[in-house]
Amino acid sequence: MDKLIEKEVTAHTLYSGKIINLRVDDVSLPNGNGAIREYVEHRGGAAVLPIDNQGNAYLVKQFRYPYRELLLEIPAGKLEDGEPPITTAIRELKEETGFTGNVTPCGVLYPTPGYTNEKLYIFIATDLRKGDVCPDEDEFIEVVKVPMSELIEWVTEGKIKDAKTAYAVLRYAYTSKKG
Amino acid sequence: MDKLIEKEVTAHTLYSGKIINLRVDDVSLPNGNGAIREYVEHRGGAAVLPIDNQGNAYLVKQFRYPYRELLLEIPAGKLEDGEPPITTAIRELKEETGFTGNVTPCGVLYPTPGYTNEKLYIFIATDLRKGDVCPDEDEFIEVVKVPMSELIEWVTEGKIKDAKTAYAVLRYAYTSKKG
Repeated sequence: MDKLIEKEVTAHTLYSGKIINLRVDDVSLPNGNGAIREYVEHRGGAAVLPIDNQGNAYLVKQFRYPYRELLLEIPAGKLEDGEPPITTAIRELKEETGFTGNVTPCGVLYPTPGYTNEKLYIFIATDLRKGDVCPDEDEFIEVVKVPMSELIEWVTEGKIKDAKTAYAVLRYAYTSKKG
Repeated sequence: MDKLIEKEVTAHTLYSGKIINLRVDDVSLPNGNGAIREYVEHRGGAAVLPIDNQGNAYLVKQFRYPYRELLLEIPAGKLEDGEPPITTAIRELKEETGFTGNVTPCGVLYPTPGYTNEKLYIFIATDLRKGDVCPDEDEFIEVVKVPMSELIEWVTEGKIKDAKTAYAVLRYAYTSKKG
C-alpha cells in the first residue's frame, strides 16, 4: 500500500470561512517528488430521504448559487460540533419538511474526493408524522412531494442532479427491487 | 420561482489554483438581506464505469489526500478546455486501465451543490478491449478487478464511499434488475 501514499510536508490554511476552509498543502509523493494538494475542509453533513406510508417522497427545491440553478434535493444540513450525524438528519428533516419519522442509516458518501474532505451521512426516514416546518432564517426552500416511482424516473431521466439525492433514491430503489 | 433566487452583488476570487479556484461572493437574498456565498470553481469532470463481457468491473485504488485514505473509484479525470465530456471519459479509461470500449452516457452529477460548481459527467463502458495502461506522470494508482455482483455488495455494505462510483454502480444495478 505504501507505494500509493502521499505524505504531508507543510500545511497551509489560505482561507477560513463560514462553511469551508481552503487548504493548500505541500506533500511528498510516493516517488519522492513534491506536489501541492488544494482542498476544502468541511465539517461534514447529513441528508435524509423521507418516504411516507403512501409511498411519496419529499424533496426541497433550493437555489444553489454555485450553479445559479434551482435544484431538487433531499433535506440536508451541516453537522454541528460533536453531533452524531443522525441528530443532524432528524433536525434537518424537521426544519425543512416538518416531519419526524423513523430514521435509519443508509451509508456515507465522499462527494468529490479530489478536493474536499466532507463526509456526508445518508439516512432514510419512514413512518412520517407531520409537524410544523421551521427553516433556518435566510434559508429559502420549497417542499416538493413526489411518488417514489416518479422520483426514480426523475433520477434515471436526469432531472435529479444532486449526488446525495440520486444515491439515496437509487439505493432505496435497488434494495426494494432486490427481494 | 423568483422568491427562491439569490443574486450576485460582488464577485471575489480569493484563490486561483491548479484544480480549483475559491470564490467568496456577496449576494442578495430573496428577502433583500445580504449574505456571502463561499464556493469552489472547478472545470468539471468525467467518470466511467468499465464492465467487461464476463461481468467484471474495473476500479482504481488511489490515495485521496483530503481524507488521508485509499479509495476505490471508477476511472475519472478533469475536462480539458472545450473538450466534450465523453472525450475525457474515453481518455481517462485508457490512461488508467488500458481499456477502450463502447462508452455511453449515464447522467450528470452535482457532487455537493452547496459549495462547488463542478459538473461530473458519468459514463458506462462495455465491450472492453485491452491496451496499455498509461497513467499521468505523478499519478499513483492500482487497478482492481471485481465482479459486478460483488461490487454492488461493496456499495450496499459501505465499502465504496466515493459518490460517483456508488451512483454509477447503483444506477447500472437498478437498470439491469428493472427488465
